[in-house]
Amino acid sequence: MKSFNPPSRILMGPGPSDVHPRILNAMAKTTIGHLDPSFIDMMDEIKKMLQYAFMTENALTMPISAPGSAGMEACFVNLVEPGDKVIVCINGVFGSRMKENVTRIGGQVIIIEDDWGMPVSPQKLEQCLHENPDTKIVAFVHAETSTGALSDAKLLCEIAKKYNCLTIVDAVTSLVGSELRVDDWGIDAIYSGSQKCLSAMPGLSPVSFSEKAVHKISNRKTPVTSWFLDLNLVMGYWGKGAKRAYHHTAPVNTLYGLHESLVMLYEEGLENSWNRHQQNHQLLRDGLIELGISYLVEKSSRLPQLNSVFIPEGVNDAEVRTTLLNDYNMEIGAGLGNLAGKIWRIGLMGYTSRKENIELCLSALKKTI
Amino acid sequence: MKSFNPPSRILMGPGPSDVHPRILNAMAKTTIGHLDPSFIDMMDEIKKMLQYAFMTENALTMPISAPGSAGMEACFVNLVEPGDKVIVCINGVFGSRMKENVTRIGGQVIIIEDDWGMPVSPQKLEQCLHENPDTKIVAFVHAETSTGALSDAKLLCEIAKKYNCLTIVDAVTSLVGSELRVDDWGIDAIYSGSQKCLSAMPGLSPVSFSEKAVHKISNRKTPVTSWFLDLNLVMGYWGKGAKRAYHHTAPVNTLYGLHESLVMLYEEGLENSWNRHQQNHQLLRDGLIELGISYLVEKSSRLPQLNSVFIPEGVNDAEVRTTLLNDYNMEIGAGLGNLAGKIWRIGLMGYTSRKENIELCLSALKKTI
Repeated sequence: MKSFNPPSRILMGPGPSDVHPRILNAMAKTTIGHLDPSFIDMMDEIKKMLQYAFMTENALTMPISAPGSAGMEACFVNLVEPGDKVIVCINGVFGSRMKENVTRIGGQVIIIEDDWGMPVSPQKLEQCLHENPDTKIVAFVHAETSTGALSDAKLLCEIAKKYNCLTIVDAVTSLVGSELRVDDWGIDAIYSGSQKCLSAMPGLSPVSFSEKAVHKISNRKTPVTSWFLDLNLVMGYWGKGAKRAYHHTAPVNTLYGLHESLVMLYEEGLENSWNRHQQNHQLLRDGLIELGISYLVEKSSRLPQLNSVFIPEGVNDAEVRTTLLNDYNMEIGAGLGNLAGKIWRIGLMGYTSRKENIELCLSALKKTI
Repeated sequence: MKSFNPPSRILMGPGPSDVHPRILNAMAKTTIGHLDPSFIDMMDEIKKMLQYAFMTENALTMPISAPGSAGMEACFVNLVEPGDKVIVCINGVFGSRMKENVTRIGGQVIIIEDDWGMPVSPQKLEQCLHENPDTKIVAFVHAETSTGALSDAKLLCEIAKKYNCLTIVDAVTSLVGSELRVDDWGIDAIYSGSQKCLSAMPGLSPVSFSEKAVHKISNRKTPVTSWFLDLNLVMGYWGKGAKRAYHHTAPVNTLYGLHESLVMLYEEGLENSWNRHQQNHQLLRDGLIELGISYLVEKSSRLPQLNSVFIPEGVNDAEVRTTLLNDYNMEIGAGLGNLAGKIWRIGLMGYTSRKENIELCLSALKKTI
């Protein structure tokens, strides 16, 4: 057995995205204890910078010590009690996962479906809430990583609030890449991933919970089914002040990486980051259209950081992706679920979102297809 | 906000332990996709090397993408169904967590208690099984991280087998530091942590499941409450062959680190690693006894990698630990639960288990207490 030396790739899939050398270097810094006073200071900085990224004052804002799927689960297992009626809006793979989460913990799910590639329909949500006024929670995906569709989170939350529902929002792909305002939009629970537009390495899930959400969590009638994700316990470790209760051993070095990626976000500025993702998307889009490649998603709800495009007719999906990987060290994403073999997902997330990558991608695609 | 530069510590607490520079360097290697063919090859090597570390041929041997607490939860949520009778042996903090896991998913718990610092009593287990022949699972901690006590896993499993029970074993602190033979001892489900005797960074939990355990998981009557930890799904990603189904985004760089730590284990040899931990323990023990410091745990069940010792009378717990940290950059562990303020836990795990650390620790303690 020998040490592993990964090839150098350009990550233009749906995540992970390219990790900046500064973040990689941060990962290699010497490990310290998860209760070390300097580590706790760093945790506080991470919380503060995540508040900035989420545009929230929520005290309960922190990273879950596991990937985005665990962040999703943290939201559902803490907020849903058995029997609670939950509306889940499904317009792709990740909406279906939300449904899975609710049913496994005994929630009562009502599904609203939209075609893959379409945003979540606010009209359908309003209608459904009208018919189900006893709904407790509305859950939807802000940026569907399986399709590249962006939904109107602000409007969907407004509607949910009218019916006194809490909202759970998947922002795995949107955070830092698209406009997202947790407090202004009234989002109650939100989860994201470290490895998309934050360009830190995969393995962490930033989350944030409103006071209303925390109130519900603190006043549950039944215990949270997951001990690891029970926020009543996790809060004791990520909580206020210098006194922290041991819950689990935090992934110390991965948190160094997240910290560095957030420092870089501060340096760039949040709105500048949104704009960079938008501008680079336009560059890629123009080039793709020139190659005769068209988008799955309508312009109005297209995610800048994840370009879902139809595989041109007569082109072999796997062959092209393999050629890009082997000849250009470039990874682009395959379609998921119903869209497998039909689309590619070209990511321009975080550090990947740079002109040189767009140029190379277009040039390589031109020669390959 | 500025980049974080951690102080350089010597980690002689209950984990994380010092991470070898080779492993830190591995963490900083360029991130690649979690479905990249070369990443999948690396995953296969990790599985093979974990089989070596656990001394098992179990096909389902892999790291869970989250800390040890999640590994514990993976074992319980997959193997326990609502109503299942589970005997949990408690002789410290981590046995109590096992109980929490069982009750939260609706299992019926029977507790066997032993004093903190004592090993689990095989007699009590046998008696309890005799009285509860319908027990499905026996769960215990091999190496109690809260007390430094080692239990006789081989004998406990033998007893459990006589009563046709599956066994779940916590090996967070024992793996690679103490003798542990999963197949020979007939362990059905086992979980560990990356940050103890493996000396990789925290954030991963190696697990292994016997064929009997996999059979139970594949034939459950109820769905696993956790989507993230449902091994029926996780197996699709960590499974056999080149074809892997996306489940969650693996913590790519952290897995590089685990891979490197396992390569180093191969180089040293598993039994050599056990012996090194034992020999260095003796060195530390002799020095501590010379300082008039005594052990919580009887010699016969003392963990070499985690030395739980009484705080000498008149000595201020927090003051000493703070002085060690500030003046010597050395972290030792406080007591947990009932033992807070009464004991220190001095770790000699993995890369920390070196003569120079023992020498410095003894010398610093002498000057401080």
